[in-house]
Amino acid sequence: MKHYSICMIGFGNVGKAFARLVTRKSKQLLDEHQVAFIVTAIATGSHGRAIDHNGIDLEKALRLADGNKSLDQLSTIPAPESIEDFISVSSADFLLENSPVNYDTGEPAITHIRTALNSGMHAVSANKGPVVHAYKELNTLANKNNKCFLFESAVMDGAPIFSVFREALPSANIAGFKGILNSCTNLLLEKMESGASFEEAVEFAQSIGIAETDPSGDIDGWDASIKVAALATVLMGIPLKPQDVDREGIRGLTDEDFQKAKSCGKRWKLVCTVEREKGKISARVSPQMVPPTSPLFSVSGTSSFVIFKSDVLPGLGILESNPSPDTTAYGLLADMLNILK
Amino acid sequence: MKHYSICMIGFGNVGKAFARLVTRKSKQLLDEHQVAFIVTAIATGSHGRAIDHNGIDLEKALRLADGNKSLDQLSTIPAPESIEDFISVSSADFLLENSPVNYDTGEPAITHIRTALNSGMHAVSANKGPVVHAYKELNTLANKNNKCFLFESAVMDGAPIFSVFREALPSANIAGFKGILNSCTNLLLEKMESGASFEEAVEFAQSIGIAETDPSGDIDGWDASIKVAALATVLMGIPLKPQDVDREGIRGLTDEDFQKAKSCGKRWKLVCTVEREKGKISARVSPQMVPPTSPLFSVSGTSSFVIFKSDVLPGLGILESNPSPDTTAYGLLADMLNILK
Repeated sequence: MKHYSICMIGFGNVGKAFARLVTRKSKQLLDEHQVAFIVTAIATGSHGRAIDHNGIDLEKALRLADGNKSLDQLSTIPAPESIEDFISVSSADFLLENSPVNYDTGEPAITHIRTALNSGMHAVSANKGPVVHAYKELNTLANKNNKCFLFESAVMDGAPIFSVFREALPSANIAGFKGILNSCTNLLLEKMESGASFEEAVEFAQSIGIAETDPSGDIDGWDASIKVAALATVLMGIPLKPQDVDREGIRGLTDEDFQKAKSCGKRWKLVCTVEREKGKISARVSPQMVPPTSPLFSVSGTSSFVIFKSDVLPGLGILESNPSPDTTAYGLLADMLNILK
Repeated sequence: MKHYSICMIGFGNVGKAFARLVTRKSKQLLDEHQVAFIVTAIATGSHGRAIDHNGIDLEKALRLADGNKSLDQLSTIPAPESIEDFISVSSADFLLENSPVNYDTGEPAITHIRTALNSGMHAVSANKGPVVHAYKELNTLANKNNKCFLFESAVMDGAPIFSVFREALPSANIAGFKGILNSCTNLLLEKMESGASFEEAVEFAQSIGIAETDPSGDIDGWDASIKVAALATVLMGIPLKPQDVDREGIRGLTDEDFQKAKSCGKRWKLVCTVEREKGKISARVSPQMVPPTSPLFSVSGTSSFVIFKSDVLPGLGILESNPSPDTTAYGLLADMLNILK
């Protein structure tokens, strides 16, 4: 049996779900993989920081976080103020990076991951920012240090996308893909096709924690675009930024548009496409009416779907239905186990 | 660079597609994986056998097979008469087993694979028979001999199913799955919903090589059932035989049934389900009407789809659209590369 320690940046819904998942799975991980994970450091945005090299009591940490209390009291040593120092002092085997996404620069997540890789840690992240803004740099740094940088949960939560092409489909050359990658707008469009106004739909999505206080990142197609950029960058070797994606959000859709779709049995979906033809790349996010004969039609609620065209499989679709923070947390765990194997 | 030799049993559509694929991909395989594959033995059902330890000229073999001529002339040594001797005399690194499926016993494929594993070869197969009738035995034998037995192409052609759970989703516990696993009946149902009679639909499917001369294996649900059994056996640890699956084919569907589906906007699909609840297993193949809100609705032509429910991902669907022998051939190649990595 081998112990591996984890430094967590971020202890929101996904971080807490991860803590519950490794607790619930501990026996299975021991039996099947002969590993035990301990969390030795947690840094949060507004609930303090804790370092305990013997392992933080996760049940206590979850109770404190759920009760909106600071984690500071769990620290056995003074936690360094700078986050870089915090990461290196944690001297953990893994960094789990779950800070909020930054569409424009990918910071501060890039710095967190760079610090971890330079401190001899593997880095696993659910954050899309570092993938589109620093994939090449971080991947090169990881290779140089004989460590890994993985990010399965950055796109479609814990559904296997990057790992499928990396681990299961050797020598597949992807020509393009098409899909629904943003859960929030998919839910909003569904609400609106049932008669809700745009504002009512947003209010509903906010009430169940799917839309943020400022939902423009989703609504204006930025989240979908950064996911498109991440997939193109990693899987197709095309270093796209979200700004490179021809982007149209869902604000422009009117009641008439929904009526029109309904009358011909179609649905509005925020569709992402990337195509490489004759060396030319087109990357696009835009609302489209899809018919029932399309695999996108039945993608409902917060589910997502993507279909890849490659030289070896004319169409490989991956559907994730009913994701939750638990699903994202599993993507993080899967990355860690795939690194260790 | 390392050379690996292959003994092929079967040189029909899939075998020939494999020969074309490794030829087309040879440079990429060398660049990315530092491997070169040579085929040193081919045994066919009705076009002879060839062994050449220096490597059979695949272009010549394809020309002969396409011209309905015997491969015997490509042999540099007398090919043994018994297939077991043929396999061991080939002394290849890999056996590629593509003999016709036997729903009842899995033979002679099981014997071929056992012989290969006992001769120090890896075994890769697109044949479902050995998976449901001898998975445990062959897997144990492979482990004992430090070799591998893989069969990605046995279900949904080259779409990654077994490899996704084996390589990308560690410690996922599958509770059940639901899908469309038989291409032929899916095509027949589509033809019939467009007004064709059962006989006309079968005739069409036969004319494009999708239905066999005796199509009862597909039509009566045996092919779907053996795939259900293979998935349950390997992914859920439930050793099912096709005979254990509650099986209903598509012969019973009438014009009225298709009218009824059409009138409520649904489609008939041959649906496979396996559920494990409270320790009880139910496995079923039967025609069902599915609505446009189901991911099964848009699975058209010879495409297939399966969605898995697990303790870590509430719904992970995998869609393969427009498969062909090329897709199956890629599944074989992917298995080989995954074994070598």
